[in-house]
Order: sequence, then C-alpha cells, then structure tokens
Amino acid sequence: MRTSIATVSVSGTLPEKLAAIAAAGFDGVEIFENDLLACPLSPEEVRLRAADLGLSIDLYQPFRDFEAMPVPDLRRAAHKFQVMERLGADTLLVCSNVSPAAIDDDELAAAQLRSLAELAAEHGVRIAYEALAWGRHVDDYLHAWRIVRMADHPNLGTCLDSFHILSRGSDPIGIEAIPGEKIFFLQLADAPLLAMDVLQWSRHYRCFPGQGGFDLTGLVGNVLNAGYTGPLSLEVFNDHFRQADAARTARDGMRSLIALQQALGRTAHPAVPTGYAFAEIADTDALRGVLTALGFAPTGAHPSKPVQLWQQGDARLLLNATGDDPALISLGLDSPDPARAAEHAGSLLSPVLPRERAPEEAPLDAIAAPDGTEIFFCGTEWRGDFAPGGTVAGPITHIDHVALTQPWHHFDEAALFYRSVLGLRPQESLELPDPYGLLRSMAMSTAPGASTVPGTSTAPGMPAASTALGTPGVPTAPGTPAASGPGAAGGSGGRVLRLVLNLARVGAGDVPWQHIALACDDLLATARRLRAEHPELLLPIPGNYYDDLEARHDVDPCLRELGVLYDRDADGEFLHLYTVTLGRVFFEIVQRIGGYRGYGAVNAPIRLAVQHADGH
Amino acid sequence: MRTSIATVSVSGTLPEKLAAIAAAGFDGVEIFENDLLACPLSPEEVRLRAADLGLSIDLYQPFRDFEAMPVPDLRRAAHKFQVMERLGADTLLVCSNVSPAAIDDDELAAAQLRSLAELAAEHGVRIAYEALAWGRHVDDYLHAWRIVRMADHPNLGTCLDSFHILSRGSDPIGIEAIPGEKIFFLQLADAPLLAMDVLQWSRHYRCFPGQGGFDLTGLVGNVLNAGYTGPLSLEVFNDHFRQADAARTARDGMRSLIALQQALGRTAHPAVPTGYAFAEIADTDALRGVLTALGFAPTGAHPSKPVQLWQQGDARLLLNATGDDPALISLGLDSPDPARAAEHAGSLLSPVLPRERAPEEAPLDAIAAPDGTEIFFCGTEWRGDFAPGGTVAGPITHIDHVALTQPWHHFDEAALFYRSVLGLRPQESLELPDPYGLLRSMAMSTAPGASTVPGTSTAPGMPAASTALGTPGVPTAPGTPAASGPGAAGGSGGRVLRLVLNLARVGAGDVPWQHIALACDDLLATARRLRAEHPELLLPIPGNYYDDLEARHDVDPCLRELGVLYDRDADGEFLHLYTVTLGRVFFEIVQRIGGYRGYGAVNAPIRLAVQHADGH
Repeated sequence: MRTSIATVSVSGTLPEKLAAIAAAGFDGVEIFENDLLACPLSPEEVRLRAADLGLSIDLYQPFRDFEAMPVPDLRRAAHKFQVMERLGADTLLVCSNVSPAAIDDDELAAAQLRSLAELAAEHGVRIAYEALAWGRHVDDYLHAWRIVRMADHPNLGTCLDSFHILSRGSDPIGIEAIPGEKIFFLQLADAPLLAMDVLQWSRHYRCFPGQGGFDLTGLVGNVLNAGYTGPLSLEVFNDHFRQADAARTARDGMRSLIALQQALGRTAHPAVPTGYAFAEIADTDALRGVLTALGFAPTGAHPSKPVQLWQQGDARLLLNATGDDPALISLGLDSPDPARAAEHAGSLLSPVLPRERAPEEAPLDAIAAPDGTEIFFCGTEWRGDFAPGGTVAGPITHIDHVALTQPWHHFDEAALFYRSVLGLRPQESLELPDPYGLLRSMAMSTAPGASTVPGTSTAPGMPAASTALGTPGVPTAPGTPAASGPGAAGGSGGRVLRLVLNLARVGAGDVPWQHIALACDDLLATARRLRAEHPELLLPIPGNYYDDLEARHDVDPCLRELGVLYDRDADGEFLHLYTVTLGRVFFEIVQRIGGYRGYGAVNAPIRLAVQHADGH
Repeated sequence: MRTSIATVSVSGTLPEKLAAIAAAGFDGVEIFENDLLACPLSPEEVRLRAADLGLSIDLYQPFRDFEAMPVPDLRRAAHKFQVMERLGADTLLVCSNVSPAAIDDDELAAAQLRSLAELAAEHGVRIAYEALAWGRHVDDYLHAWRIVRMADHPNLGTCLDSFHILSRGSDPIGIEAIPGEKIFFLQLADAPLLAMDVLQWSRHYRCFPGQGGFDLTGLVGNVLNAGYTGPLSLEVFNDHFRQADAARTARDGMRSLIALQQALGRTAHPAVPTGYAFAEIADTDALRGVLTALGFAPTGAHPSKPVQLWQQGDARLLLNATGDDPALISLGLDSPDPARAAEHAGSLLSPVLPRERAPEEAPLDAIAAPDGTEIFFCGTEWRGDFAPGGTVAGPITHIDHVALTQPWHHFDEAALFYRSVLGLRPQESLELPDPYGLLRSMAMSTAPGASTVPGTSTAPGMPAASTALGTPGVPTAPGTPAASGPGAAGGSGGRVLRLVLNLARVGAGDVPWQHIALACDDLLATARRLRAEHPELLLPIPGNYYDDLEARHDVDPCLRELGVLYDRDADGEFLHLYTVTLGRVFFEIVQRIGGYRGYGAVNAPIRLAVQHADGH
C-alpha cells in the first residue's frame, strides 16, 4: 500500500520536513496548511520540491468551519482551491465545524458541502469530509458519512481518522458500511489511553501506530474490507516529535507503517528471542571484583578481541576491555533463527551493523537499538569462540531482565522498536518518583501480559511462558520464600525475555543507568553470604522501608537484616537486592516465587533515592 | 498565620527538602511518607533535624484505604502511630478510600474512623480525614465532614484540600458550616483549569496559589470564617517542581503564601507600574544602526556609566556598552511610588539589588526578576541623570510591550512574580507552534483582561485602561487603518504595562529571544519608509501568509507589499512588523487600532518559522 504522512508530524521547516519524509521512504505527504503559510517557497516551488523528492502531495489540510453555517464562505474556499492548483494537491480535508455559529442541520450541511464540491470540481479538487471528535454537531464518522451520502456529489467523500474514531470509543466495524470509493482518505494515529479532554489528547499525545493503546490493525482491516485503495497516511500531533530530529521521527513513522502492514498480513514474528545469551559490559577491575563476589568466574576468552566470558549458571557476561567506565555495550539474545531475526529487523528499518570477524569465528547478526546498544541474535555457536572451560555452578541461574534508560523524546520510538523488531509485548507504563523527578518505566516481555492467565495459549510466534515463570497458582505463605517452581532456575537461559525501558529525565545531572537483573534460586542465602563477605557492594536500604513493609506485610525479619526488598502480587512473591553502581551499570539479584510477574517497581523509588543520596 | 509545606512539593532527598523549606522561612512541614521511607535517617533523626532547622512537623501523610472496609486494618495503623511518635508528628492525614473493596456505608466508615481515632488517642495522635476528589464513595468535603461528625471523637477532624474541593467544582462556602476546631488541617494547591482526569490533574499539574486558575483567596477566606487557626500548608504535586531547585521552589511557595495573605487582607498593590520608563540593552554598532533606521536618536548619556539614552516619543532605550551581543539587561517601570513598589517587592521575597551610584545621581530601586532581568521602579528623576537633549519626535510613541523567554521549569514562578510583585494580571495562556516545538506564551498586563469591557471600573489599585487602549467601540473598516484613538499615541509613556512571558523549550539550540514591541501611530508609513531605506532590517514575511490572509479578510494589498502582518479581534485591529534579530533581541513595531487587546499571537508561528529558517 502507498504510504504518506502529514507534514505536521515531524519537526522543522517545510523543506526540512519534505527531505526527511522522502529519506524515510514515504510515497507522499499531506501538506499541513500552517507549514505552507510559514514557508518562503511559493506553492509552485513546494510542488517542484516534492516532485524532485519523489513525493506526491496527497492531501491539503485542514479547511475548517465551513459546513452548516448561516452563510457558507465559498470565497475563502475559492482562495484555497487556487493554492491547491498551484501546489498540485487534488484533495482537501474539510473537518467538521466547531464554530458556535454552526447550525445543527444535516440537510443544510449536506447542501453546503455539495456546493463546495461543485466549486471544487471546477478546480479539479476533491473534498474529504471528516468528523472531528470534538465537532460541534458532527463528531462521529458515521454521521459524517451520512451527510456525505446525502450530499451525493462525485467530488465529495469522507476522510477517516483513527484517532477521531477510536478516541470517542466508536466501533470501527461500521466503516465496512461505507463504499471504498467514497473513503477519500485515511489518516492514522495511535495514542496512549488517557482520560483527558479529547482536543488536548489529540493535539499533544498522538503517536505512531503501535506506540499507543488503540487497535489500529483492526481499524485498518475494516477500511480495507470496505474497499479503500488510497494511502495509509500518518497524522500525528505530538509534543516530543515536534522537538525531535525530523529524519529519525520520519523513519520511526515508516517503521510503524511497515509493522502495521506485517500485522495486517498476519505475519507472525519469525523468530521471537527466547532469552538473554549474554550481556556485554565495558570492563574495569572494580567490575571484576563485583562479579567475583557475586560468584561469577571467567570461563573463556575471545580469540581475537579483548573480551572475556564470565559465567554463572546460564547467566553470561562478556567483559570487554575496550571501555573506560562500566557500561552496557551489547545484548546477545537467544534466537531460534538468528538470520531470519536479523532479516526481520532489517525489514523494519533497523540498521544492521557491519562486523569484522575472523573466518573461524561464528557469524553473529547484530543491529543497533535506538539507544545505541548493539543487539546480537545468537544461536549457540558463538560460545565456541570463547573455548569455554565449563559452567560455573551457583545460585545465579540466568539473566532475569535488563533495564535500559532511553533518551528524552525517544521513549515511544524505543517501545515500538522492541515491540516490532524483537516481538516483545509492552506491559503497563508506570511513573516512579525519584528525588529529582518522575521516571517513566515500562516493562516488555515475550511473556503474556499480567492480565493474561499464565499457561494458557499464547499468540502465534509467542513462546509459552509458564515453564519459566514457575508453577502458577501454587500459594506460598507471605514472607516465607517457598521453593521456586520448576523452570525458575532456568537451565535454558530463560524462556522469557524481559526488558524494562526507563525514560531519562530532561536536564543535566541525570544518570542514564543501565541495570542487569540476575535470577537466583536462593536469594536469602546469597544475600546472607554477600552481607557477610562484601557488605560494601550492597546498596543500603533504609530501616524506614522495613517499618513500612512490616506494617503492610507479615514478612520475615531477616529481610531487614539482609537488606532484601520484597514485593508480592496475586500470583507470587519477589525478593530482590541491588549492588552499588559502577560507571553506568548496577546489578540486581532477584528471586521470583510462584507466578510473580512484576519487577519490584513498588520498591524502585527507594532504590532511586538511595542511589541519588549516596552516589551509590 | 503559620506556614507549612508538604515535602512532596520540592525536589531532593528528605534532608535536602527540609533544609530548603527552612531556608525559605516556613514554620513547619508535612512529612510525605515516601520521603521518609527512602531516607536513611531514622524517624528520631528526622525529628531532630527538623527541630534544628526550626520546623515543626505538622502532618504525617497519607494513610490510605482505611475506612469502610470489611475488616479495618488497625494493625497497619498502629505501626504508623509508632512511627509518628518517633517522628514527633501529632496529626495523621487519612484520605478517603479508593479501594474497590470499600463499602458504600457512611455509618460503617464513621464507626471504623472512630475506632481509629480511639487508637490514635492512645498514641497522642489526631486523625484528619480528607475527601479525595476521586474517592470511591467519599469524594466531597461535606461528605467527609458528615462522616467525621457522625463518628464524633475528639481525636477525629477533617482535612480540607483546596485542589480536591475546587477541582470537583464544589462550592467552598459550605466550609463555613464546619466548626473551626474540627478542621484539623488545610492543604493549599492551585492548578491550571484543565479538562482531564482529576487524578492525573492532581498528580502532575498542581501549582502554588496564584499560579493557576482556582480562587484560593476565596476558599481560604471561607476556612478562616469557619474559625480555623492551623497553618496554611502547601501540598503540590508538579512535574516541574520535582525537577527544579528545591530552594528556589520553596521560596516560590513562600511567596505564594505571602501574596495570598496580602490578598486576604485586601491589601491593594501599593504602586502598580503605569508603563515602561525604559528598556536597557547591551549595545553594539549593529543595534545602533537598527535604532537609527527606526528613527531613534541619542538624547543623553549617563555621567558615570557607559550608558546612552536613545529616544523617540516616550520610547526610551538605554544602550549599555558593557555587553557583548545585544541582550535585554533591565527594564525601567514608571511607578507612582518607587520606594513603596520596592518595599512591596521585598515583602514578596524579591531580591533587592545593591546598586552603586554617585551622590548626585537619582536613586533607583531595583529588584531581580526570575530570569535575571533587573527591574527598576522609576519616577521621572532618573532622566535628569542623562541630561536629555530634548525629545525626538517620530511615529514611534512608546514601548507597547516586552516579551521575555523564561527558562524551562520556571514559567509558573515567573507568572506569580509578575502577578504579585508588579500587580499584572495574567491573560489566556497560549500554545504557539514553531518549527521545533510548541511555545507556551502568556500575556500579562495592568489592563483588565480581554473578557472585561474596557472603560468600566477596575479593581482597586488597577489603573483605568481605556485611555491608553484607544476609544473602544469605534468601528474601523477592515484593512483601513483608522486614526488611532486618543491616548494610543501615549504622551504618558503608556498607561498600561504589558508583558508577554514565553516558555523556552527544553533542549539545546533554543534561542531565548527577548523582544521589544514599539507602539507606532502610523505603521504603514513607517513600514513604507523602512522598506524603501532599510529593507535588510525587516523580517521577510512569506507570500503564502498573504494568500491566506486575503482568503480570511478583505485587507489592503499594501500589507503584502510592505510585509506588514495583520490581526483583528472584536474590538479592533492590529498591524505589526518585525526587525531581524540582533544577539537575543529583536524589535516589533505595532499599531493598535480601536480597542484591539491582543498581541498578534495568531501571526507568531509565521514569525517563528521565518526566524528559525533564515537565522534572522
């Protein structure tokens, strides 16, 4: 299908916008009127510029407050048609009237739109009439269609906008009642599910399909069933996009349309990763000290690179001596089909990274994540490069999750990347207070979301999660860490891939922490040993935390002695502790008991305050 | 009255918050529980720290989801009372239950709150029960009071929170039905008037009294009429405050309480400024060139400082040779009583600036505005220092307004500063798109707001605005600039002080423009002369703007030729043009025709795009 995007969706001047949109591979654009008005290029020059860039001008928008007025302003319309002729745009978006002067009379609206269409026809222009969600009398897409049908003019059709339809809670299945040739245009925007004034919601919080909470795939399916053959066009008003790099935003938008089309084609993700193969960290002596204390040991070294493999159970860390301060460099993901995973990532515009390797080394396909972290899709051959000297047994079994901090303005981009490229499913987005601001945090995983009953069937391409999450439904006494369920110790390196995205705050002084959580099958014993042998490595937890915890739950007093944090949900319990921070990196050790599905987010504000206060 | 503030209102760790709050002069604090939980100090140590700082602990908060439950959790309450005893806090905030398990039964709620109060009494604690605006069954302050009265226990009273009352649209006059001694606490927060989910509104957008749209003065008046004698306590959840400097936020909060008490005392502003005496700009040759082209000429020089007075009509600019690039250094305001104006500013915690002057020079009282601009309160004596060589006649008559760009996080602080310290009234807050983001912009002036009929009576301390705004109600033909009304040419330096606050965007590359708008009594003639003699000084306006303008209004074609922008409102018309930018500063020349009250904001996006695109 043809792809298009409204110029209002990306930042910059009109020429900058057009260049970015063309570079991202769109076929066409909607020209947002204000972008033209502020542009020193004449309409003819804009037309030429777009043509040079290979972009068609699919829509000129918006024309406001026309229909159902005491006197329709055809003079203003005639001016716009002249501009459109100069611009080479053949479709004008007319959005439903919001003026207090508008009259609640469908026949009047239809008659005036018909006269507008007649005038438009003289200029070779088509009118696409759209119901704004906050239109004064027309705010529903079926109402707009009823008026269009009443007006009955070949140059008049309707424009559908997913935001205006879904934000009102209208059922998009009614779209299938509209003849495809009368759907003159389709604008797509997603949005987070917010309870707020719909006009403000629309003007500030729209996002690209797959970044919000609407079912865009379902709606576009209805539109295609109706017989629509025009472009899929993105129209997004978003405060972040307005400030972000135009080329990056446009590429992100194109990725969303590709993912949407894959979803429409019911293409399952070809190779959802099944766990972490490794995490690669820039190395220092201090880091080796912490890892040794945690029970890790070196089990191999790369033949040609200054990289050591450190291991405990199926938790594998690559220590790379090329760095300065400890920082996460790359993540290796266990993939059932690395080549197809990389190919899928490439189809979604992820940069595939060039990589030098010796002929005898295992091939590894890598892509760049939005925050710059490299992502490797791994089979098991890569381990051969490190000539591993056997596994190190210990309470730590595998990497439970990794938490990455995303740059301001790029959170939604990252969420879409991990959702579409890796096949992760987003969970609830949280706001966590720390001493210097709110942190937005969203967990994603290959496991079904918290609202899904574990062990039930999963979507195509999604692995069953129950084996790695332990046995669901086995009650455990509060405060008494029970034996973990089968599979929690994860001999497979984990069957669930869990990732947490945090949003960095604006402003200086923010620490873009990266955090690796290690799963452990006896956290209390591990904590007891660390507390005895290396107390300086553990993040100190305030006694006030335990006063509150003990008011809320009947927990074992040893948690306070050991500095272990605690959470529970309907399905199980969670024990965890943190190390101090080295460079950008700190470690968490976690134990999931029963079917606990969270990440201990309730305790994150405590951790953040201690990290800030003491520079840990 | 005693002043207090919740620790959640400012950023930092608990010890940092307490220090900032004490430094701002508050008498006490509310300890927000999460701040204590994350703090390494024990409750006893926090108690000592507060005492050392001279702060009482007025409230411990919040205790959630207690009343109207199948089984009340007195065990959890007992833990909290122990913590409060250690902390030395004698009042616990209990907010109305939001749990789905809560039962809609006032008698049950009352009985359980009574048992809570009985337990509290054993610990010397009082319970202040508050209706959350989103409480499950209790969301109105009178409903909470009814339950408190039903429970009838001396250790149980109510807590009133202005946000919870006013956000629901409840009438606060009902507060006068509550005996003052049963109002155990009063929490104050203002908020902008937003149409959104009340929980999100409360958690992110609260602000200090006078920064939002609620009538806090009226509500506090009702509370005092009821006989309340406790502290005025600020409780603000605000995303900006969470990231801002704690000392600055605390001082801003204290200023809001001082202003609130002045308003309660019906203290009129003692000396509202009547116009701009001067604007002082760091000087360059290029700036002098622009001013010469605009018809300004030097008319005097300061005897001891490298400062020249340039003048045209009553528009006075001080050119200060100490700067590098042109930037606004200070504003002189015509004050009916400079000494009282400075004293008033000092009472509102504005830093009064030390100033060196020779004995023979006129005294000038100066304060620092939040963005660092110096504000001088001026009589007319200061002009004597410049030994002025007579006035320069010309079409420019006075400074119409000045627009300042405020740093991120400090917009609300600035709005409160100009409102309380200068006596300006805020007008509507606008969002203006520019190519790289939205700009928030709010005009303030000593004139009645746009919703007030000009020429009618004004508030005490406010000057009448009609003389300076021209004759209202005289219709002028569109596109035909009529002779301006009497007073628009302003022989007095303007009787209305107008200021526009813009909010700088986050991120690098933002230009913190400062902009001086000069009133002119024949803009078209001035534009014609400038276009002929100095076209390079005028900001070029795109032809597309005029295509649209001519579609909307029947305007004179000379506007296009001259590059003059146009706006109109119900009361009149506005002609304006812009110069290119020098350093941080550009000039606008404006002509108000009839009773036009705006600032041409509709055209600002055009200007911003041209300024960005061409580096003008």
